[in-house]
Amino acid sequence: MQGNMMDVPLTIPFILERARSIFAGREVVSLLPGGRDEAGQPIPRKHRTTYGEVADRALRLAAGLQGLGLQPGDRVATLAVNSYRHLEAYLGVPSGGFVIHTVNIRLHVDQVAWILGHAEDRVLIVENVFAGLIPAIRAACPKIEHVFVLGPTPAPVEGAEDYDAFVMGHEPMSRSPQIDERDAAGMCYTSGTTGNPKGVTYTHRSTILHSLASAPKDMLDVGERDCVLPIVPMFHVNAWGLPYTCAMYGAKQVFAGVFSDGRNLAGLLQDEEVTITAGVPTIWMGLLAELDRAKAEGHPYDLHRLERLVVGGSAAPESLIRTFEERHGLRLAHAWGMTETHPLGTASKVPAGVDERSDEGYALRAKQGRPAPLVFLEILSEDGERLPHDGKTMGRLVARGPWIASGYFKGEGQGNFFTMDGELWFDTGDIATLDERGYMHIQDRAKDLIKSGGEWISSVDLENAIMAHPAVAQCAVIAMDDPKWDERPLAVVVLRPGMSVTHEEITAFLAPKFAKWWLPDATLVAESIPIGATGKFLKRELREQYRGYGNAAQRSESAPGD
Amino acid sequence: MQGNMMDVPLTIPFILERARSIFAGREVVSLLPGGRDEAGQPIPRKHRTTYGEVADRALRLAAGLQGLGLQPGDRVATLAVNSYRHLEAYLGVPSGGFVIHTVNIRLHVDQVAWILGHAEDRVLIVENVFAGLIPAIRAACPKIEHVFVLGPTPAPVEGAEDYDAFVMGHEPMSRSPQIDERDAAGMCYTSGTTGNPKGVTYTHRSTILHSLASAPKDMLDVGERDCVLPIVPMFHVNAWGLPYTCAMYGAKQVFAGVFSDGRNLAGLLQDEEVTITAGVPTIWMGLLAELDRAKAEGHPYDLHRLERLVVGGSAAPESLIRTFEERHGLRLAHAWGMTETHPLGTASKVPAGVDERSDEGYALRAKQGRPAPLVFLEILSEDGERLPHDGKTMGRLVARGPWIASGYFKGEGQGNFFTMDGELWFDTGDIATLDERGYMHIQDRAKDLIKSGGEWISSVDLENAIMAHPAVAQCAVIAMDDPKWDERPLAVVVLRPGMSVTHEEITAFLAPKFAKWWLPDATLVAESIPIGATGKFLKRELREQYRGYGNAAQRSESAPGD
Repeated sequence: MQGNMMDVPLTIPFILERARSIFAGREVVSLLPGGRDEAGQPIPRKHRTTYGEVADRALRLAAGLQGLGLQPGDRVATLAVNSYRHLEAYLGVPSGGFVIHTVNIRLHVDQVAWILGHAEDRVLIVENVFAGLIPAIRAACPKIEHVFVLGPTPAPVEGAEDYDAFVMGHEPMSRSPQIDERDAAGMCYTSGTTGNPKGVTYTHRSTILHSLASAPKDMLDVGERDCVLPIVPMFHVNAWGLPYTCAMYGAKQVFAGVFSDGRNLAGLLQDEEVTITAGVPTIWMGLLAELDRAKAEGHPYDLHRLERLVVGGSAAPESLIRTFEERHGLRLAHAWGMTETHPLGTASKVPAGVDERSDEGYALRAKQGRPAPLVFLEILSEDGERLPHDGKTMGRLVARGPWIASGYFKGEGQGNFFTMDGELWFDTGDIATLDERGYMHIQDRAKDLIKSGGEWISSVDLENAIMAHPAVAQCAVIAMDDPKWDERPLAVVVLRPGMSVTHEEITAFLAPKFAKWWLPDATLVAESIPIGATGKFLKRELREQYRGYGNAAQRSESAPGD
Repeated sequence: MQGNMMDVPLTIPFILERARSIFAGREVVSLLPGGRDEAGQPIPRKHRTTYGEVADRALRLAAGLQGLGLQPGDRVATLAVNSYRHLEAYLGVPSGGFVIHTVNIRLHVDQVAWILGHAEDRVLIVENVFAGLIPAIRAACPKIEHVFVLGPTPAPVEGAEDYDAFVMGHEPMSRSPQIDERDAAGMCYTSGTTGNPKGVTYTHRSTILHSLASAPKDMLDVGERDCVLPIVPMFHVNAWGLPYTCAMYGAKQVFAGVFSDGRNLAGLLQDEEVTITAGVPTIWMGLLAELDRAKAEGHPYDLHRLERLVVGGSAAPESLIRTFEERHGLRLAHAWGMTETHPLGTASKVPAGVDERSDEGYALRAKQGRPAPLVFLEILSEDGERLPHDGKTMGRLVARGPWIASGYFKGEGQGNFFTMDGELWFDTGDIATLDERGYMHIQDRAKDLIKSGGEWISSVDLENAIMAHPAVAQCAVIAMDDPKWDERPLAVVVLRPGMSVTHEEITAFLAPKFAKWWLPDATLVAESIPIGATGKFLKRELREQYRGYGNAAQRSESAPGD
């Protein structure tokens, strides 16, 4: 028997209309480039607008795109940093019936062109700072018919039009086209550490459900009184969905643009009275250095309004969570997800009865958290059997839910999706534990896991422990080939200024926490660790760099089970 | 173009599975009857269980119902108070593929039987305290095949089985049946102040969306660390959805059963460390009296964990909100909805930049709040034209959204639904204002509005103002017929113990706040005001009682526009 409830589709125009009608006065603040200093570095200029104006311009953009003759479902790419104009595209492109395809600005121009071609984008919206790439892109991507440049340029750009002029040259779209909630609304390519990048297409339905599910206090805790600064880029999984979640709930939004260094961030967090911010661990390490500096110099930032710093992308070590809390009274809170999960899979909050500043609390906060409502997680053995949720057993993490990908664009990468008990699941490629209360703890990427004598060693666990050493700024642990144990761990560390450390000091530091056979066989000091386009360590490159190192290195003869 | 997101239906078994798997240890506390005192009054006994056990028993109930031969979509009625057993039915009945039909226990047995017959219920689950009604119901409702009694009875009940024995006699259902998200999951009849009651059928989809949308902090603010005591009955619009929202987010639930007097409530709120509670204004008036008494006697309750008292069903006067805040430091927060709106239509929280304890804050808090995400509200003129959102213009409140009814069971009451600009809307029958920021303020039920000289007078505004008078405990303002002005307001007041008041004192008290023509023509003192089955004043009865009074009463000759 069907029930009698209105058949209202879950579509993004409702978010736009809500922001326009009841949050019209809430602010949207962006740092834009405002000239250059004597050293040639860009100087930030603060731009203030409102949801009312953003919504109006988003509707003009939608009307303009319709006027270009685009068909429903056509892709409109952005190559842009976080700003109010990018937010207009987030709201306006899908409301016009099109798909916003956010492209990673940190990729090489050849990769950008490959992705634009694969997605068959018809329109490209480019940040002015990347306008120099336009000729190469146009040459490589003949299917792109129109290019619009965000922000002023010193001179007109060959083959491109001014975005503001285009937007303001149209009246606001007065009525959204018919949109089915399962129509595509957004598109984002995975970073593709193996093989070509693959496209994930978000639907209107998944975006609305993700926005609803992200807001409650056990997830990202967003409301109208909040001010949210997503440092995570808008080209990276919808900036973790925050632009939509904030517009749905009326939170003020702040965008740092190209200014994501510690000093500019700390200034924005303080001056705009930010309550929630979100980014990868490397961003928080940069912010920590700036907060430490300011405190040491006797003029600390006033961040008393800042409720939580959401950390995702990769795991934050417990030591970093403790340091923020103990040194600056700031709360780092884990969330976990992937391009394929929209991305909110889990968020971390300590459960009832646990003090978040107790040892148990910190240990739980170092995990990635509990699944969002409607998301189900399992860990599987190599044979595909479900493993126990005991907080200890490691298994391959798989996920299912209404905002989790069922496949990639053009049917690629089918191997990442499989059927279990008649239901479709996504294989995340992560190795994790799950505990009785649902807390998920990433142990490693399956491909980064070190297999020593038939047993698994978590590189992430070792990295987090080594990063708590006072001399260590960054650490990556990788597998090196070993004739006896197959693989053994190798630690690569970047030192804090003026510090030094020996391999013996590192193993002595780790010894109380790990079985002897987990301890790295060698510790190497490096100037830096290569970081990829999404802010993660490029372990593949590291492994290439240190291939064959194992044969020359000093060996411990400890074995699994020692 | 369709996107590639998993096609996971939004169904209640996901809530059950989530509660079972990750919130298994969270408590569910119920006050059950535990014998009688010397005066024959029931004594409460506290029962403690967990979501794990509730979920297990819910799955046994589902399996048991399937074993009875019920078909998907068949209705299972409950005639029950708030308790863990009722929660089992909330989760288990829809997870088995059936429809839980919650029936108002305060109705006359003839009305109950009419509703059970109209809904064509096949199974009835009855609280033991109402077991005496079973013979009459069975006689009147031949379609009911099975009756189960919740809790112990002194002797077996003719024509009924023991619920616990039935539940524990089955193994838990191991796999949910195929459920379409648009299938009916719940059913509730409107209180039907005119004509026969009409059935609203909630779907799995609407219940999931409502649960997601209810949790964020601008709505009911529910998380795992919360403890929620829904005083609003589970037979009344799903206890405002709280049993589902709490199970989805893992909040501890507390049920008062038949013990909803001020003393038992205050004790539960304190001892169970309740953080969120919800009920109608009359419940809060009873609680206020108990809190005042305890404070005056020098042993106030410790309610420092109580974050908010959600008030709905009818409007709470600003004076009540102020009194709770100023006298006990407790936050009353409005929510608004109806059986037809699942019920969450709006919830009240002051916007950014407003202090909730300022005059502006209190004035906003006396309104019903902003719409939930995906719910859209408009106010219409008598000609059906959209009226401005200026906070002043009154119009007929209409609503649209994915958890708002599109019709009633068996196609009745079509007049309450209409099409505007190609979209279906529900006519709430309320008269309201909407302001620029979306705050909705109920002025009156359309049928209670007083039309004097062609202008509208809000009975609710007058009642709220009169209830702020120190001598007045309760007040209802109704229309009396008037030969000159058509209708004029008449105030009926219940005095506080030992107090008195004259009509002149009331009008003098009101005069600074209202136009002269709004002031009541007469003030009558009554012993009590009749209250209906959902806790609202029965103004229809009052109007009957005072029909013709107008011709005898003293008249003011002020006219509209004076």
